[in-house]
Amino acid sequence: MHDQNPVFLPGPTNIPERLRQAMSGPSRDHRSPAFARSLVQLLADIKPVFGTEAGEVAVFTASGTGGWETAITNTLSPGDRVLAARHGMFSQRWIDLCERLGLEVQVIDAPWGEGVPAEAFREALAADRERRIRAVLAVHNETATGVTSDIGAVRAALDAADHPALLFVDGVSSIGALPFHMDAWGVDVAVAGSQKGFMLSTGLAIVAVSPRARAAMETARLPRCYFDLRSMLAAGRDGSYPYTPAVPLLDGLRESVHMLLAEGLEQVHARHRHIANGVRRAVAAWGLELCARRPALYSDTVTAIVVPRDFDARALVNHASEAYGVSYGIGLGAVAERVFRIGHLGHLTEAMALAGIATAEMAMRDLGYPVVLGSGVAAAQHAYQVRARGTPEPAEAVAAMEVR
Amino acid sequence: MHDQNPVFLPGPTNIPERLRQAMSGPSRDHRSPAFARSLVQLLADIKPVFGTEAGEVAVFTASGTGGWETAITNTLSPGDRVLAARHGMFSQRWIDLCERLGLEVQVIDAPWGEGVPAEAFREALAADRERRIRAVLAVHNETATGVTSDIGAVRAALDAADHPALLFVDGVSSIGALPFHMDAWGVDVAVAGSQKGFMLSTGLAIVAVSPRARAAMETARLPRCYFDLRSMLAAGRDGSYPYTPAVPLLDGLRESVHMLLAEGLEQVHARHRHIANGVRRAVAAWGLELCARRPALYSDTVTAIVVPRDFDARALVNHASEAYGVSYGIGLGAVAERVFRIGHLGHLTEAMALAGIATAEMAMRDLGYPVVLGSGVAAAQHAYQVRARGTPEPAEAVAAMEVR
Amino acid sequence: MHDQNPVFLPGPTNIPERLRQAMSGPSRDHRSPAFARSLVQLLADIKPVFGTEAGEVAVFTASGTGGWETAITNTLSPGDRVLAARHGMFSQRWIDLCERLGLEVQVIDAPWGEGVPAEAFREALAADRERRIRAVLAVHNETATGVTSDIGAVRAALDAADHPALLFVDGVSSIGALPFHMDAWGVDVAVAGSQKGFMLSTGLAIVAVSPRARAAMETARLPRCYFDLRSMLAAGRDGSYPYTPAVPLLDGLRESVHMLLAEGLEQVHARHRHIANGVRRAVAAWGLELCARRPALYSDTVTAIVVPRDFDARALVNHASEAYGVSYGIGLGAVAERVFRIGHLGHLTEAMALAGIATAEMAMRDLGYPVVLGSGVAAAQHAYQVRARGTPEPAEAVAAMEVR
Amino acid sequence: MHDQNPVFLPGPTNIPERLRQAMSGPSRDHRSPAFARSLVQLLADIKPVFGTEAGEVAVFTASGTGGWETAITNTLSPGDRVLAARHGMFSQRWIDLCERLGLEVQVIDAPWGEGVPAEAFREALAADRERRIRAVLAVHNETATGVTSDIGAVRAALDAADHPALLFVDGVSSIGALPFHMDAWGVDVAVAGSQKGFMLSTGLAIVAVSPRARAAMETARLPRCYFDLRSMLAAGRDGSYPYTPAVPLLDGLRESVHMLLAEGLEQVHARHRHIANGVRRAVAAWGLELCARRPALYSDTVTAIVVPRDFDARALVNHASEAYGVSYGIGLGAVAERVFRIGHLGHLTEAMALAGIATAEMAMRDLGYPVVLGSGVAAAQHAYQVRARGTPEPAEAVAAMEVR
Repeated sequence: MHDQNPVFLPGPTNIPERLRQAMSGPSRDHRSPAFARSLVQLLADIKPVFGTEAGEVAVFTASGTGGWETAITNTLSPGDRVLAARHGMFSQRWIDLCERLGLEVQVIDAPWGEGVPAEAFREALAADRERRIRAVLAVHNETATGVTSDIGAVRAALDAADHPALLFVDGVSSIGALPFHMDAWGVDVAVAGSQKGFMLSTGLAIVAVSPRARAAMETARLPRCYFDLRSMLAAGRDGSYPYTPAVPLLDGLRESVHMLLAEGLEQVHARHRHIANGVRRAVAAWGLELCARRPALYSDTVTAIVVPRDFDARALVNHASEAYGVSYGIGLGAVAERVFRIGHLGHLTEAMALAGIATAEMAMRDLGYPVVLGSGVAAAQHAYQVRARGTPEPAEAVAAMEVR
Repeated sequence: MHDQNPVFLPGPTNIPERLRQAMSGPSRDHRSPAFARSLVQLLADIKPVFGTEAGEVAVFTASGTGGWETAITNTLSPGDRVLAARHGMFSQRWIDLCERLGLEVQVIDAPWGEGVPAEAFREALAADRERRIRAVLAVHNETATGVTSDIGAVRAALDAADHPALLFVDGVSSIGALPFHMDAWGVDVAVAGSQKGFMLSTGLAIVAVSPRARAAMETARLPRCYFDLRSMLAAGRDGSYPYTPAVPLLDGLRESVHMLLAEGLEQVHARHRHIANGVRRAVAAWGLELCARRPALYSDTVTAIVVPRDFDARALVNHASEAYGVSYGIGLGAVAERVFRIGHLGHLTEAMALAGIATAEMAMRDLGYPVVLGSGVAAAQHAYQVRARGTPEPAEAVAAMEVR
Repeated sequence: MHDQNPVFLPGPTNIPERLRQAMSGPSRDHRSPAFARSLVQLLADIKPVFGTEAGEVAVFTASGTGGWETAITNTLSPGDRVLAARHGMFSQRWIDLCERLGLEVQVIDAPWGEGVPAEAFREALAADRERRIRAVLAVHNETATGVTSDIGAVRAALDAADHPALLFVDGVSSIGALPFHMDAWGVDVAVAGSQKGFMLSTGLAIVAVSPRARAAMETARLPRCYFDLRSMLAAGRDGSYPYTPAVPLLDGLRESVHMLLAEGLEQVHARHRHIANGVRRAVAAWGLELCARRPALYSDTVTAIVVPRDFDARALVNHASEAYGVSYGIGLGAVAERVFRIGHLGHLTEAMALAGIATAEMAMRDLGYPVVLGSGVAAAQHAYQVRARGTPEPAEAVAAMEVR
Repeated sequence: MHDQNPVFLPGPTNIPERLRQAMSGPSRDHRSPAFARSLVQLLADIKPVFGTEAGEVAVFTASGTGGWETAITNTLSPGDRVLAARHGMFSQRWIDLCERLGLEVQVIDAPWGEGVPAEAFREALAADRERRIRAVLAVHNETATGVTSDIGAVRAALDAADHPALLFVDGVSSIGALPFHMDAWGVDVAVAGSQKGFMLSTGLAIVAVSPRARAAMETARLPRCYFDLRSMLAAGRDGSYPYTPAVPLLDGLRESVHMLLAEGLEQVHARHRHIANGVRRAVAAWGLELCARRPALYSDTVTAIVVPRDFDARALVNHASEAYGVSYGIGLGAVAERVFRIGHLGHLTEAMALAGIATAEMAMRDLGYPVVLGSGVAAAQHAYQVRARGTPEPAEAVAAMEVR
C-alpha cells in the first residue's frame, strides 16, 4: 500500500504523471517519416539542456554506464592514458570501466566527500610534458557523496597547462537539474541519463559530443559497435537509428525536454536549489554532517548524510522502507555503512520533500538516533515557507527552534 | 507541477495506482455473460463492507446524493414524515432533498460539531404516538464537521420507543473506512460513494437495502425511475443493468473491494484510526480546536479544524493550494469561514499525512497563525512512530514537545 | 487475450488513448478556482456540439437515462400529457420512464425500423385543440434499430399545428457523431451521453436546455432533486456543482470536445458516414437486410442487421465473443432474436471496421449463415479505398464482386 | 486518430494492456530486498522460454544488437575467427558487428530468402582442421526475410564435424513466439529482445548463456564493460545490477513471462502458427510470393512479401501508413524495394490480423497491384474460422474462393 509514497532515490526519480503518460502510448513505427521528423527535432531540442550549440546529441538505449563507455570507446585507443580522480563510487566505477577497456588510468585519489581536485589535475597535466594524457574524466555530480564539482575549474586546469586532452564529464545526476555549460566549459563528451534530471525511467544514455570529440572518433581504435557514435550520429541526422530504438522512452524524453524548456532552465535549477536547501537545513537541525565537505560542494540533486558513530546507515534505509514504505538511497562503496542519501532531483515539491524529511526523522528515532522529531521538518519549513505576509518570522517561532 | 502532491480532500481521495489501472481498461461489453458473472460476484462481495448479510446491494451511476434520493424515493410516499437532525452540511442537504421531494421533515437542530442527537430522537419517536414518522435519517459521518455519530444509539432510540420507522444512514464518507454494522444496527438503507472509502473516482452511489426496506418499496408512491431500486436489484440478480452501467468504475469497485477484504476490514479501520490520530495530535499541538465537540465524535476519515478568531479558513485553503499545490477541504455552510478540513480517508500513508500536516503549518504561518513550525508534525510523528527499539520515547524528546 | 480487439458496441465505444489518459489523472479539488474556470469553459465549449447558442448545458453524473429523467422532471407536472412514438427499445423505455414518473403518455406506435412518425405527430398535435400535450418526445437515433429520425420534420409538425408543446430529443447515440441542430430544430431539451459520440466511459448525461425549457422549470411540479436543473445550471454558471462531480469524466469530456472541435464537426460527421457506409455495403454483400426500413433512416452510428430466418442473433453475438473475442451489440426488445448490431460510432478507423466486418463473417459462417467469406469485407473496402491513382476501379475487380 | 489501429511491425509488437500497465508503475528502489527477490525469480522463470535448464540468463538494458555484442565480446578474443552466413539484414549486421569488434568472419553467402546453410556450415567446419573457428553464428529467425532456420541442423553440422566451436543464436524475433530449445540444440549464447515475443517496449536484451560459454568468458580478451556478462551474471544471482536497471521494463518482463507460461509455451507457439498461417494464405490468394523460398522456412512471426515487378514496396508501406494509419514493416537492405513485411508476433488476434490483411489489400489496390479486394481476407478467414458446426465448408464458398 506504500506505492503512493514518493521515493527519495537519487534516481530514478518520481515520474510526473505527464511523463508516465508520454511513455505509455501504443507501439508505433520507428521507421516512419513521422518518427524521423520527431527524432531530429528532439535531438536539436535537447542541446540547450546540455548548454551546447556546437555539440551533437546521441541517445543510446542504455543506462548512464553505457554513456561512459560511449565516451571512451569512440575517442580513444588501446593503451591510451586518461586522467581521473577517485572520490566516490561513480568516479571509481568510471575508472574501473576505463581499465577494463584497456586504458591506462592516471588516478588521483581524493577523499570521498571532496570534489574533482582541479589543482591536482592542473599539476598532473602540467607534468605531462609528452602529452600522453588523452582525456580527462570528471564526474560533475558524485551521486554517492552528494558532491557537485566545479567543471569550469577543470577546464581552467587544462587551459592553464595548455593541455590538448579531451574533457569528458559524467553529468548523469546533474544535467537537467543543475547548471551545465558544455560549450563554455569546453566539455568534449557529456553524459546524461533519462532517470535523473529528465525524470523518466532508466533506459536512455544521452550523450553530447563536441566537434573535437567527433574528430577524435575518426582515429580512435577501441572496438565498439553498439555504442558506435559515428553510426548513431549519422543515423540521428536522418531521424533514424542503427537498431530498434526505445520509442516510448524517446517519447518521454521529448515531453521531458518540453517541460524543462517551458519552465525555463534557470527556474529548473533554482527549484532544485530551493528544495535541496530545505533538506540541508533539516540535516543541520538534526545535528548531522553531510558527506560533502564544504558548502561549495553541496549537491542540489542529492544529499548524502553521515550517520552518527555506532549507527549503520543501511539499517536505517531498510527500516524506513519496511516500516514506512519510503525509499532513500543507501550508502555506496567506501561509505556504505556511514551514509544514507536523500535524493531530491526531478519534480519534487516542498510537500514531498517534507514527507521525506519527516519520515527520515521517525526512522532515525526508531533506531535511537539522537534527533528531535520535527526539528528537521521545521528547519526545512523555514526554507520552504512563502511567508505571504512579507514579514520576517516572529521571534517566538525562531526561539522555539533554538531550544531544540 | 504539483500534480504529484497528495490531496487532503475528504473525498475524492488519492487513488492507489492499482485502482487507477483497474479503472482504465479498454471498453468491454456490459451485456456479455462475463460481465454478468462479475457483477453478481461484486454485489455479493461488497456486503461485508456494509456489515450486512441480509441486505442487498445496488450500485447506481451517480454521486452519493443520488444514493440519498434512492433511499427516499423507493420507500416513501408523498407527504410522509421523516425525522432528521440538522448538524452539518450533509445532514442539512439531505433534509433539503426530502423537502424537495415532497416529504414532511421533522427537523431536530443540533450544533454543528455535534453528532446525531439520539436522545432527542428517542423523545421525538416516543412522542410520535400515531407512528407518523416513516423513516429516521442519520448521517454516520458528517464530512463537513468531521463528526462520526453513534448509529447504534439511534437504533437504540428506535427500539426504546418501539417505533417501526425505517432507518436510513448516510455512510458516504464512512463505509469502507470506518466500522459499519448494517445488520447489527438495523439499518434499512445505507448509502456509500465510490470516491471515499472505496478510493475510486466519483460516480457510483452504492446502496445496501434491508429486507424491510425492500418490502417498503412495494407500496412507496414517490415517483422514481433512474433510481428505481426494484429494477436495479432485479437486474443485479441477473448480473445486468436497467441502463448502460459505468463499467470502468465497476471494475475499479471490484478491485477496491478485493483490496479492502484482503487487508481485512478491521485492519482497514485501524489504519484509518492510526492516521487520524496523528492528524488530531497535530491539531492539538497547534493549539487549535476541532469542530467536533468531543473525542467520542472525532471522525477517523476527516478532521475539521476551527481557525483562530480573525482568520478566514477559505483564505487558508486557497493559499495552500496556490503557494504549495496542496488541496485541503474548505469549510462548508455554517462553518465556511471558520473551518478547514484535512481529509484522511482512503489509502493514505504516514508519509503522506505528514506532508499534509507540514504544508498546513507553512500555510498557516504564512498567514500569521500563531502555530509553531514543526510542532504538529512532531506530534503526529510521535503517533506514527514505529519505535523499533521497543522503548518508550526518551524524556528529552517528550520535553521538547511539551514546551511547544 | 482478446482485450486488444476493438469493440463494435453502439456505446461504450473504443476509447482513444488520448481520452483514456485524460480520464486517468490524479484526484484534484473540485472546489478550487482552477476547477471552476475549467468547468465554465467546458460548458461553453460543448454548445456547438449540440448546435446551440441559446441553450445552456448541464452535465450530470448519470447514464443517458438520467438525462431523460432530467428533461421530464424539470419541465413537467404530475399528470401532464406527452406525445411519444414507440418504434424501438429506447423510445419504449422513455415512454416507460414517463409513465413511472406519473405522466400521461399519448403513444403512437410505429414499426421497429421506422423513424419518428412526423406526420402522425402532426395529426395528433393538430387534434389536440386543448393543448393538453405539454411535450413531444423524439429519439434522434434509435440505437436498438439503427434508425436516425428527422428531427427537423418533428419541428415542422409542431409548427404546422402551431402547437406550443416543448420538444425533447434523445440524442444519446447521435450527438457528437451525427449532425445535430438544437437551435435550428427548436429542440427544448437535448440529451447526450459520454460513452457515445464523446468516446468516453459511461457516466455523464449531458443535457442542453433551451430558454423555453428553462422557463418551464419555474412552474414544473414533478419532484426532483438529484436531477434538478435549476441547481445544476446555477452552479455551473459559477463553475461549481451541487454535489461531488465526477472530475475524471469531466476532464475526459473537455479533451473530447477539444478533439471534436479541432477535427471540425462537419468532418466528424462525414467520418461517421464514411465508416457507416462501408458497414452497410458489407451487409448488402452478405445479402442481409437492415432493421432500418429505408436508406433515409440509416444510422451512421450503429447498424442493426436482421439475421436470416431460422437463425438466432443472440447466439451469433455470443459466438463471436467466445470464439473470436469480438463484441457486437445484441438485439434488444422486440427484435432481440432477429437483430444484431455493429456499433460504429466514435473514433473507429477503416482498419478497425474491417476487422469487425471480417470477424462477423467468420462468426456467421461458423453458424451456417449463407454468407460468402470476404464478400462483406470486399464491399466495405470498395467504400473505404482511397484509390490513390485516381482511376475508377478496374472492371475485373468489380466483376469479381458481382459474381459473389 | 489512427493510434487505435494495431501495428503490423515485426516488433515492437502491439503491447497488451496488461503489459502496458505492468510497465507504468511508479518508481521503486532497485536496491531494495524486494527488488532483489523479484529479479532472482524472474531470471529463473525466463529459462523455460529459452528451453534451457543449464543456461543462465542476463538481462541488459539495450536493444537486441546489444545482446549480440554481449555474446561476442564475452567469449572471444581479438582476431578470433567466427563462421557466419549472410542471408538477410540481421545476419549481415551481425557479421558487421563482428568485424567492427576485430574478429575475422568466415562468411558463407546464401540468397536472401534462404535459411542458415547447415550443409555449407558442415563443410566449412569439417575443413577447419586447425579448429580456428571459435564460434558459429546463426540467426534463428531472419526478420528481414521472414525466414526461420533450422538450428537443430546447425548443431548437427557442428556435431558431424566434431567441431568444438561455440554456437551463438540470434533469437530476437523468435524466442517467446517460436519453439526454441537451447539445451537440446546445444546453443551457447541465445539472444532475445523485449519488444518481440515478450510483447514489451524495446529496451531489454535478454541473453541466455550455456556453461560452455560461461567457461569461455574466463579467457576471452575482447574488451567489454557495459556488456560484461561476468558482472551481470554475478549481480543477477544476488538480485542486483552492476548499474541502474530499467525497472519498469523488468516489471513488464516479469508479467510477460507469467503470461507466456500461464498460456503454455506450446499453445503460444501454436497460436503464432495459426495467425501466420492465415497471413500466408492471404498472400497466396493475392498471387504474391513470399521472400522465404520454401514452406519449411516460413516464419510464424513475420511474413515478408515480394511485391510484383514494377512496384515499390516502400511506397506501399508509406501509402498504407498515410492513407489508413496502418504500419507494416518496410523492406530492408538488399530487398528494400522488393519486400514489405507483415509482422504477426506477440498477442495478435484473428480480428487484428484480418484488419492488417484487409488494409494491405486496399493499399495495394490503391497503387494498382493486381489483387482482388477481399481475396486475401477470405483466405485468411478460412484459416481462422472456428467452424462451430463442425462441418467442412460448403462447396459454394470454396468455389467462390477458387474463381478469385
